[in-house]
Amino acid sequence: MPQDCSFSEEERRGVYRAIYERRDVRSHFLPDPVPDDVLGRILDAAHHAPSVGFMQPWDFLVIRDATIRNAVYRNFECASRCAAEVYDGEQRKLYDSLKLAGIVEAPVNVCVTCDRQRPKGSGLGRQTDPAVDVYSTVCAVQNLWLAARAESLGVGWVSILDLEQLKTTLGIPQALTPIAYLCIGYVSEFRPQPDLLEKGWETRSDLGSVTHFDRWGVHDMGLKK
Amino acid sequence: MPQDCSFSEEERRGVYRAIYERRDVRSHFLPDPVPDDVLGRILDAAHHAPSVGFMQPWDFLVIRDATIRNAVYRNFECASRCAAEVYDGEQRKLYDSLKLAGIVEAPVNVCVTCDRQRPKGSGLGRQTDPAVDVYSTVCAVQNLWLAARAESLGVGWVSILDLEQLKTTLGIPQALTPIAYLCIGYVSEFRPQPDLLEKGWETRSDLGSVTHFDRWGVHDMGLKK
Repeated sequence: MPQDCSFSEEERRGVYRAIYERRDVRSHFLPDPVPDDVLGRILDAAHHAPSVGFMQPWDFLVIRDATIRNAVYRNFECASRCAAEVYDGEQRKLYDSLKLAGIVEAPVNVCVTCDRQRPKGSGLGRQTDPAVDVYSTVCAVQNLWLAARAESLGVGWVSILDLEQLKTTLGIPQALTPIAYLCIGYVSEFRPQPDLLEKGWETRSDLGSVTHFDRWGVHDMGLKK
Repeated sequence: MPQDCSFSEEERRGVYRAIYERRDVRSHFLPDPVPDDVLGRILDAAHHAPSVGFMQPWDFLVIRDATIRNAVYRNFECASRCAAEVYDGEQRKLYDSLKLAGIVEAPVNVCVTCDRQRPKGSGLGRQTDPAVDVYSTVCAVQNLWLAARAESLGVGWVSILDLEQLKTTLGIPQALTPIAYLCIGYVSEFRPQPDLLEKGWETRSDLGSVTHFDRWGVHDMGLKK
């Protein structure tokens, strides 16, 4: 391969730092505004995600208006109260103690949608698995998230929302599917571990236990380090 | 923010290079083996994706066996012949000329699945949108893809496959959902643009046309560069 296609050690370290130091931020947002050029860079990173048939099925709705963010926060509060009902005892106490959204604290929110009827790509690659347009949109979210980390911006993905109500609040056309609601801003810190690991909600699984070789369930070949 | 949380210029460039120079590779795979330590790094990058409730719903099936890859290739060939039938005229000619999979040429294939019944995370964040476990799995795919680019490895996502047949071939339990079938290997080159753009299948949309501000359809605020 031509030399100029390979990454320098430091460039490669940047990619792995973004991957390992990315956090799902809820608690540490600062009110500092996100400059337009920085926001433009992370949206352009999202827009350069892979997409099935080069369909590019995404849209990005940037929300800075405080009134709209407050309305979305009320949606979240209500959905989270409902969601809490399935937990009891110590788990309910822990759930109630978790900070699960930074909708109001983060100065920028971005709703990423998928237009499943978008004609671009002419259906290439979408006949055997109709969900791949949605998958493309999620790839855009992950690009944005990693670019944001490289820009020292925190991102939190809020999934506890009534999506129909969200569409109404944001004026999203009925035919579109909201995929991700993201809170974005500078942060006081990036924690060393995910919140849900630090707070004892869940443990990290072992990579070896979810890696199989040639046939499902064959774990013992491993990978020589 | 503490200084050590920010990225150096070169680390940040690495992240954007991975995002912009990542390709969906089908034509340029080399037969060179992928060392175990490199494969281990890109799988660990995938395993550090965000996941709803810290559910980590993914599994990674690494396929190096040529007989199995040949069986998957026959699945692809058949599915692609079916898919071709919806196109005619010039578009059919173009479809037939596209190279859409590197299953046999790439020395490593990885099937990424989602276990939608996995109890980890105790359902946190999954009550309002049941698809978020699948989205987490796609985030893992995109992490792998970008880490692979930083390692000078090409990745191609093959979506033209009969998924039920794929599960049978690979022995994947019935309850699991295959999300992505990836071909991975070193490459002779990374093309400057996506194949489907270069070949004239589809054009890149303008970021401004898919970016909205505060309310859907409001494009005119733009972002100052």
